[in-house]
Amino acid sequence: MVSEEQLIERVRRRFPPGLRETSSGSRRTGAGLRVGIGDDAAVLAQTPGSDWVITTDAFLENVHFLQKGYPPNDVGYKALARATSDLAAMGARPRYFFLTMALPEGTTGAWLDGLLSGMAQAARRFGLVLAGGDTSRYPTIVASLTVIGEVARGRAVLRSGAKPGDLLCVTGRLGEAALGLRIMQQRKHRRPLQWRHHLKKHLHPEPRLAIGSWLAEQGFASSMIDTSDGLSTDLRHICQASGVGAIVQAASLPVVRIPAELRPQDWNALNLALHGGEDYELLFTVPKKVAGRLPRDIGGVPITVIGEITKAKSILVADKGGRTKPLRAGGWDPFHQR
Amino acid sequence: MVSEEQLIERVRRRFPPGLRETSSGSRRTGAGLRVGIGDDAAVLAQTPGSDWVITTDAFLENVHFLQKGYPPNDVGYKALARATSDLAAMGARPRYFFLTMALPEGTTGAWLDGLLSGMAQAARRFGLVLAGGDTSRYPTIVASLTVIGEVARGRAVLRSGAKPGDLLCVTGRLGEAALGLRIMQQRKHRRPLQWRHHLKKHLHPEPRLAIGSWLAEQGFASSMIDTSDGLSTDLRHICQASGVGAIVQAASLPVVRIPAELRPQDWNALNLALHGGEDYELLFTVPKKVAGRLPRDIGGVPITVIGEITKAKSILVADKGGRTKPLRAGGWDPFHQR
Repeated sequence: MVSEEQLIERVRRRFPPGLRETSSGSRRTGAGLRVGIGDDAAVLAQTPGSDWVITTDAFLENVHFLQKGYPPNDVGYKALARATSDLAAMGARPRYFFLTMALPEGTTGAWLDGLLSGMAQAARRFGLVLAGGDTSRYPTIVASLTVIGEVARGRAVLRSGAKPGDLLCVTGRLGEAALGLRIMQQRKHRRPLQWRHHLKKHLHPEPRLAIGSWLAEQGFASSMIDTSDGLSTDLRHICQASGVGAIVQAASLPVVRIPAELRPQDWNALNLALHGGEDYELLFTVPKKVAGRLPRDIGGVPITVIGEITKAKSILVADKGGRTKPLRAGGWDPFHQR
Repeated sequence: MVSEEQLIERVRRRFPPGLRETSSGSRRTGAGLRVGIGDDAAVLAQTPGSDWVITTDAFLENVHFLQKGYPPNDVGYKALARATSDLAAMGARPRYFFLTMALPEGTTGAWLDGLLSGMAQAARRFGLVLAGGDTSRYPTIVASLTVIGEVARGRAVLRSGAKPGDLLCVTGRLGEAALGLRIMQQRKHRRPLQWRHHLKKHLHPEPRLAIGSWLAEQGFASSMIDTSDGLSTDLRHICQASGVGAIVQAASLPVVRIPAELRPQDWNALNLALHGGEDYELLFTVPKKVAGRLPRDIGGVPITVIGEITKAKSILVADKGGRTKPLRAGGWDPFHQR
């Protein structure tokens, strides 16, 4: 049977500090980590001129993933990706993370190695250095991530800054993760090869870190959130925090493309785009006066204007003919069954 | 059924920022918290001249506590206390914490209120401000805490600084939490009133924050750890990190006092003191040249010299007659069954 020490040593070897691999080469990370794994706590140097941005996120077996059908390296990648997406939504650059894991005895071998491998891949990609964590034995797999980033002082983009007249924008395409989840559920988690492309966003989401920090640095975004719960729910979060409303143009939405073979399934692209969660795109608002300087894409990811912030606090969706109806918050709420 | 938003609102109301209650009055906390609960992530201002000290800790139903016999406010208090004890072990002052919780539907009412109440009591006592977290629904209760503290730059006390000749010291009394746990187990978690005093350390441990930060500020301690796993295991952590050994004088140990009524139980005070976990006392080493200036107690908590660090890497326990034998690491390892 594996001991806690052996387990910690295996984790430590998987996350050597600290190179970040990017498309333009690699750079050193973790320079501010004074004490990492292996003491009672981690010690981090402060960075003058920056604020810390910190988020925590649980990734739970049978809630967020299943052992069956979900390769452990995808589980590891996604657990870290979805937590890191919250940093993108603040415009922060990722620095450190902490991994708290509870595992059944039967998963501490190859399954854990797969998880750590996928998580290490995500860490290198996002520029994150593992600084600590905690391990326990448990009947189900529980992962809890704490991710720490940095942003120039006072530059974090909050949910609360949207103003009437601001344009509502979104990165990428909406509903793709929900389509992938439905394909998985329909195929009873056997992951049909021919649909692999459509599963990618569900299994391997890509936090929009470069776009988030670019928007924060430029001061373009007046408010921002990541679409983890689904557009309708995440937009409500922005509107409530900002004390405003919004109108979404349905025809402008960059909705998921459902392959013809799946059409008879009666899945509706607009519904998936409005209410499907886990796309981890950025939903943000831009004051009209700077909107003209907003690029059409950033690093190959399209930016789409999908509506406008309104003074009236209702949240509406408009069809092509200009008819509006209330947009109910139909996204993910962990305390409501779907 | 409760929604995530309602739940977050209830949590938020339980942890108003930020007053710390101490024996000498109250002081404001959380001044550096730029953005707290309710956004994608928390934003914390940096403090010049300090290092951050960060730890994460899981508190799991059926591993660390049971619903039966464990009042929810004790669960809440202890979950935060044990995580915060890691800060004491580094000599850091607590500042912020994050609470990630997964809960069964049936516990989101009175049970959760009890837990939050106990946790809020601990937070006020330790000077911690809740800065964020995450909630999910789950079949069992899972709490994961991230606690952040500060220490003057370069002053954190590590496990790795013990030198041959240093005196080995411990705060308080050892084995009390293990005695409490055994009473609970023996009485099938009915918490007999007459043993209440002996359950206190098991249910309501007290992290030695003032002593830890005093030792760090004075530069007295060359290494430090909290006795969460048990003296024998925690001493091994210090010796391995420092590349040294140690000899413990059994007769010097401040062992738990087992009441006469429980003596026939065949519980051995020395064994409880050597291997019983969860006392959350501080085990630390002091260079001989400053040992004379070490007080006998700090804030009413006794400091006891229990042995010495040795160059030879073995860890020994000596009896009154000077006979030594190896001290096996018999404390808590979450991946070994007891």
